[in-house]
Amino acid sequence: MLKKLKEATLEANLELVRRGLVLYTFGNASGISREDGLVVIKPSGVDYDALRPEHMVVTDLTGRVVEGALNPSSDLKTHLALYKAFTNIGAVVHTHSEHATAWAQAGREIPALGTTHADYFHGPVPCTRELTDDEINGDYVLNTGKAIIERFAGIDPLAVPAALVAGHAPFAWGRDPHDAAHNAVVLEAVAKMAFMTVLLNSQCGVSEALLDRHYFRKHGAKATYGQNTVI
Amino acid sequence: MLKKLKEATLEANLELVRRGLVLYTFGNASGISREDGLVVIKPSGVDYDALRPEHMVVTDLTGRVVEGALNPSSDLKTHLALYKAFTNIGAVVHTHSEHATAWAQAGREIPALGTTHADYFHGPVPCTRELTDDEINGDYVLNTGKAIIERFAGIDPLAVPAALVAGHAPFAWGRDPHDAAHNAVVLEAVAKMAFMTVLLNSQCGVSEALLDRHYFRKHGAKATYGQNTVI
Amino acid sequence: MLKKLKEATLEANLELVRRGLVLYTFGNASGISREDGLVVIKPSGVDYDALRPEHMVVTDLTGRVVEGALNPSSDLKTHLALYKAFTNIGAVVHTHSEHATAWAQAGREIPALGTTHADYFHGPVPCTRELTDDEINGDYVLNTGKAIIERFAGIDPLAVPAALVAGHAPFAWGRDPHDAAHNAVVLEAVAKMAFMTVLLNSQCGVSEALLDRHYFRKHGAKATYGQNTVI
Amino acid sequence: MLKKLKEATLEANLELVRRGLVLYTFGNASGISREDGLVVIKPSGVDYDALRPEHMVVTDLTGRVVEGALNPSSDLKTHLALYKAFTNIGAVVHTHSEHATAWAQAGREIPALGTTHADYFHGPVPCTRELTDDEINGDYVLNTGKAIIERFAGIDPLAVPAALVAGHAPFAWGRDPHDAAHNAVVLEAVAKMAFMTVLLNSQCGVSEALLDRHYFRKHGAKATYGQNTVI
Repeated sequence: MLKKLKEATLEANLELVRRGLVLYTFGNASGISREDGLVVIKPSGVDYDALRPEHMVVTDLTGRVVEGALNPSSDLKTHLALYKAFTNIGAVVHTHSEHATAWAQAGREIPALGTTHADYFHGPVPCTRELTDDEINGDYVLNTGKAIIERFAGIDPLAVPAALVAGHAPFAWGRDPHDAAHNAVVLEAVAKMAFMTVLLNSQCGVSEALLDRHYFRKHGAKATYGQNTVI
Repeated sequence: MLKKLKEATLEANLELVRRGLVLYTFGNASGISREDGLVVIKPSGVDYDALRPEHMVVTDLTGRVVEGALNPSSDLKTHLALYKAFTNIGAVVHTHSEHATAWAQAGREIPALGTTHADYFHGPVPCTRELTDDEINGDYVLNTGKAIIERFAGIDPLAVPAALVAGHAPFAWGRDPHDAAHNAVVLEAVAKMAFMTVLLNSQCGVSEALLDRHYFRKHGAKATYGQNTVI
Repeated sequence: MLKKLKEATLEANLELVRRGLVLYTFGNASGISREDGLVVIKPSGVDYDALRPEHMVVTDLTGRVVEGALNPSSDLKTHLALYKAFTNIGAVVHTHSEHATAWAQAGREIPALGTTHADYFHGPVPCTRELTDDEINGDYVLNTGKAIIERFAGIDPLAVPAALVAGHAPFAWGRDPHDAAHNAVVLEAVAKMAFMTVLLNSQCGVSEALLDRHYFRKHGAKATYGQNTVI
Repeated sequence: MLKKLKEATLEANLELVRRGLVLYTFGNASGISREDGLVVIKPSGVDYDALRPEHMVVTDLTGRVVEGALNPSSDLKTHLALYKAFTNIGAVVHTHSEHATAWAQAGREIPALGTTHADYFHGPVPCTRELTDDEINGDYVLNTGKAIIERFAGIDPLAVPAALVAGHAPFAWGRDPHDAAHNAVVLEAVAKMAFMTVLLNSQCGVSEALLDRHYFRKHGAKATYGQNTVI
């Protein structure tokens, strides 16, 4: 069942490990089959070394486990909320990667300070407001997703494929698990460079024109970057 | 004698090396058998590459060497003081890991700035006061332990399983050697993210509600993180 | 065709990977055969693991592809502009290496703060002005090259073999691809040390005399560093 | 001739590479045979991968090459000056390790901020004054050594086995090449932690009592750290 999506989701989880974005069992990636209305997600608190495609947990969009012997990631409800609100995304990744988490903990959005950022994020990487005590004491994981969705009012999720949750850490997403993990890795690099940049110059940032030029160089109908064929 | 505890203690020492927490022979881990009243600790100043379970030193709670040909870690008396005062802990780890040490040298506790912290530490990671000259010139290693214990008045050591010794470096602990080393590794990651966070925003921190939510997600009777089975 | 230059250009690209200067497919290196008026450049957006000498793209100085099945790097026009204006260089390298990019994003030149810098750069590493909206909306990649050239009025490109493009990232160059990649690697190290230095002391820098002494120790007719033979 | 010293000097050079203290051919280590009045030093600008004991250059204390086909390190005269002035040292190491170099470029001594520092350096790591233009234009490499020696008036070189040269980088030394390289490695770790510490708290430092306690724990007749035997 969903064999390819399980493999792709596992591979996205492992990419987070290879790139140094996760420590121990931190982090999780999921992917969705829109036609089946089913989500494949990493099990909770399992060593990455031991992960196999068959350990991936399959749930429906209400969070009911449809297949899999293990508990799904404790962040499942955030993933599901994002899939329901952001209908053009195909995968979600959550990490506590160090630099992006520092921005999230500081409660600051990551401003667009250069073309590395603009190549991937068509505007600042937003940071949610802090959750209220009621939201934390209530359906906390779901409310985390709602805070992201609230913050993205008027923003195309695929044009800015990541968010910082204040006091917590980043979520990233994409068209598929490979794309979402890639965005999470670039987000961490962008966050690191932005950290150093604001220490060197607290007043800087790219122009709208440069943001557009670089973003549309890699995205949309007029993209010019890369190859049409694979070598 | 205490074969399993020796292996677990050695393994905890090696985990510190693998995770980049120790340089050369810095750092030490110990474990206690509460029923035997005996402590297993790394020998002093020995290369990690050469360490074998049989090199571990066994002492009683007065510090008398019961087994082992080598000198115990020069920090033995701090470990023993912690075991006597914190009766619910089963292992102690000491490192000079870079970021946690920077906080200790700065004489600042690590505030709870995010959920990574809250998942492991139910409040700030405390920093001791500076030792007096008399304490330094007297039974210094013991007095280091006493300063930690003094600082933990009213704090459950397993709820905040680490301390910073001012002008020195961190100690971490846990239920067993694996747990103590794990806490030391997470402490270093938390210290690194907190360092960057306070440079980005000198005024931030998580709410009590968020601290509770994340801490009790991983600890206590109502913990929901992870699996009940092992894969 | 240009077999040795293709190999050297590929090797320069791979050196950027080995030294941690590029993430994914970021970055590109090219080399020029002055006698043939032909440039060898990395193809756009191709995984470094898959790169072989025969994938290198050959163009003339107008940008026309003379050989190669793949699209050339999207930064080709910047490389060509530099080759035409800086007639003594033989290779160009572009990366988004983290620390040099932070300086570029901050819009600050890297001042000559020590002898590591002076050994390679006979003066600050200049930062271009920001491009105007018209320049960005027009022939952007070419205009990036023009901004570098404008900034180097009165500077010998081989005496200061790198530039920062404001809001973007560094370009480096050299006599040949090996030399250009080497300069890009040293630039990143110099940028990292300069970042820390200005946080420790916002007012410092080497004297003209020390800058000269170290630069001419490694460059020009009176250089004394290294060997006349290879071991 | 001096076979063991050559091997030990090469090994010290390679330790600098393994610990990430040198980039490309940066850095050099030497050792002295006091009874022979001869110094063994790394050749200038040679790849570390290719280095063999027989490539080491032997000179007398005037700098005359007694054995070896290659040019000695361009920093030879600094090494020789240190050997002549600091008669209790047996080896010298020079690197451009990143954090120690940042302090040197900032022209700031590294204050004793914690016990890691105190275990190795019995006081701040001094920074020389800047050289005058005449000193730079004259016998520059020798004058670098003289500036270190001037700064160490009243300091036992083995009690503080490293110096920062302003606008340049660190030199470290020790009883033998192994010891000198070890001190250079610890200096870099101490410099990194001190960098973070002063950003967290610009006013801190250890007491005289703690400095003494830790320094004499590892040094001198009453040292208690480590083993009397080797395992």
